[in-house]
Amino acid sequence: MRETQAYQSAAPGAPLALVAIQRRDLRPDDVAVRVTHCGVCHTDLHALHAQDAGAFPVVPGHEFVGEVAAVGSEVTTYAVGDPVAVGNIVDSCGVCPMCELGQENFCVEYPTLTYGGRDTIDGTVTSGGYSAEYVVRERFVYRRPAGLDPAAVAPLMCAGITVWEPLRRWGVGEGTTVGVVGLGGLGHLAVKLAHALGAKVTVFTTSPRKADDARALGADDVVVSTDEQDMARVAGSLELVIDTVSAAHDLGPYLAAVAMDGTLCSVGHLGPVTVETLALLIGRKRLSSSGSGGRPATQELLDFCGEHGITADVEVLPSRQVATALDRLERNDVRYRFVLDLADIG
Amino acid sequence: MRETQAYQSAAPGAPLALVAIQRRDLRPDDVAVRVTHCGVCHTDLHALHAQDAGAFPVVPGHEFVGEVAAVGSEVTTYAVGDPVAVGNIVDSCGVCPMCELGQENFCVEYPTLTYGGRDTIDGTVTSGGYSAEYVVRERFVYRRPAGLDPAAVAPLMCAGITVWEPLRRWGVGEGTTVGVVGLGGLGHLAVKLAHALGAKVTVFTTSPRKADDARALGADDVVVSTDEQDMARVAGSLELVIDTVSAAHDLGPYLAAVAMDGTLCSVGHLGPVTVETLALLIGRKRLSSSGSGGRPATQELLDFCGEHGITADVEVLPSRQVATALDRLERNDVRYRFVLDLADIG
Repeated sequence: MRETQAYQSAAPGAPLALVAIQRRDLRPDDVAVRVTHCGVCHTDLHALHAQDAGAFPVVPGHEFVGEVAAVGSEVTTYAVGDPVAVGNIVDSCGVCPMCELGQENFCVEYPTLTYGGRDTIDGTVTSGGYSAEYVVRERFVYRRPAGLDPAAVAPLMCAGITVWEPLRRWGVGEGTTVGVVGLGGLGHLAVKLAHALGAKVTVFTTSPRKADDARALGADDVVVSTDEQDMARVAGSLELVIDTVSAAHDLGPYLAAVAMDGTLCSVGHLGPVTVETLALLIGRKRLSSSGSGGRPATQELLDFCGEHGITADVEVLPSRQVATALDRLERNDVRYRFVLDLADIG
Repeated sequence: MRETQAYQSAAPGAPLALVAIQRRDLRPDDVAVRVTHCGVCHTDLHALHAQDAGAFPVVPGHEFVGEVAAVGSEVTTYAVGDPVAVGNIVDSCGVCPMCELGQENFCVEYPTLTYGGRDTIDGTVTSGGYSAEYVVRERFVYRRPAGLDPAAVAPLMCAGITVWEPLRRWGVGEGTTVGVVGLGGLGHLAVKLAHALGAKVTVFTTSPRKADDARALGADDVVVSTDEQDMARVAGSLELVIDTVSAAHDLGPYLAAVAMDGTLCSVGHLGPVTVETLALLIGRKRLSSSGSGGRPATQELLDFCGEHGITADVEVLPSRQVATALDRLERNDVRYRFVLDLADIG
């Protein structure tokens, strides 16, 4: 086994503590990644707040970057020192129709999550990227564009791919009208990516003071969602609206902004939502959702970002300040994503 | 003015009575239609049960067929004696983006409904097709295939177009897997039309005894929706599911039957519905709705039905038995649509 350092919560409510953990010895198709930066995702908070003692200990972290530290005997695509990235899934069955489509995130056997998942070979529970090293199957390692700031690449692996999937699925390109609801970790990347794809981007925000930020990110228009007149101005005008808000809210006003045959895609993991079928009927609109992505789309996103110089706007903290990052994230006090720099435990 | 006979309810709760009503004198672009058959739609029940006294008197009926009785001075497409059909809208602004798209049903000025609507020129309230004659603008008159039983064509004008729109919108053709939930007025037409388009059709029903009927209509498979094992058998297999059930119900099981990137389209006017976003997320599924259709799609449907010999399965009653038709419809005791034969009041 390979020993490494990681931030682990031992039980529900227990703070993260830096401890030594074991990673498996490299299998022939494994890559050991020296983690340099790991993004802090809302999912990490959910995992740490879980009430189920059986789900602990937990090492969070599922959007990270680093360099290849070692490779298994049959690894062909990576060599020691290569810049790489890893996202929220680290294995899948590889043979089901979803895996064959390159949608490993929908693997019918359920994909192995980067933390809290169960390795299909040895049955161990996976520990995440708040750690100095991660061992992962070669298929779930991605080439990281070397020209980009690694810390700012990390959030692309979860926040980024989650908004990239609907942008690609709904064919966003030159001149497409795209709305983005919420300007957080996911939303700010949706704006940047949609803009880079050539879309005309409208940001919905409750805070008029975020208008300048939104425009700086690439928004062409900003709508204050609490202002009925402003909302009426964009009614029926947007081919795709990506709603990134993760707190319960009424989808009706955003559905009203969708154009004929357009789509409202909620990526905020809202659980059950209620919509008026008449609001879907008039204009043949669609409600959809999205989360994470498959291997081809993930690599495509990284390549696109490399080409267009796109990264997340991040606040980088030394990993020993992980508690601060989580506290502030919980209060939505972040612009737009925390990233832990793991050099201090490497 | 032109006097004609019609079945009218004078006030909330009042039974339909055969009375003389006035139709407008023909404008240059008007067509007078001698109504021979009018379908009895659930919407008619809703209108008659309305509590708002201001909405009365009501003459229901918005799916009817007949022959041209007279034409205005500028009418060019129809001549006296032509077989025609009229649906649930009889006018629209004609210039908004929706009208220009041929989606007059989504006219931004709101289309004029066949009954209970307001004529944009003289401001009168429209009276429906439970009547010996109807006067309608030429643009909203459709050519009726002469080879088809007129009584059985009438329901195509509302029930038919409501299911035709999603079938066409979602590109149903040879080999598409289509599910149809509910085997009533809309559902039985969805099965016939999807089958004629070349789709592989699965019918969901709560009544195993309807299996033979479903197969006779063109279904390739029948799933008893109360049988979990049967439902599990078709999970993730259908590219489009058209849910025609108009009573409140859980959409979850039908969403589970939808394939990757597929659509659940509810046409039952359910009002607010609740869905689990995770059920949309996994497989990038879509929830949609549909109702009625535009002029091009309506004529396309009639032409398609003429070509393929498709009509509704109907129970024809003399119009004086309209109360029986409404009573039985309310108890869902119809197979699959009542049609009033208006010869007895012509």
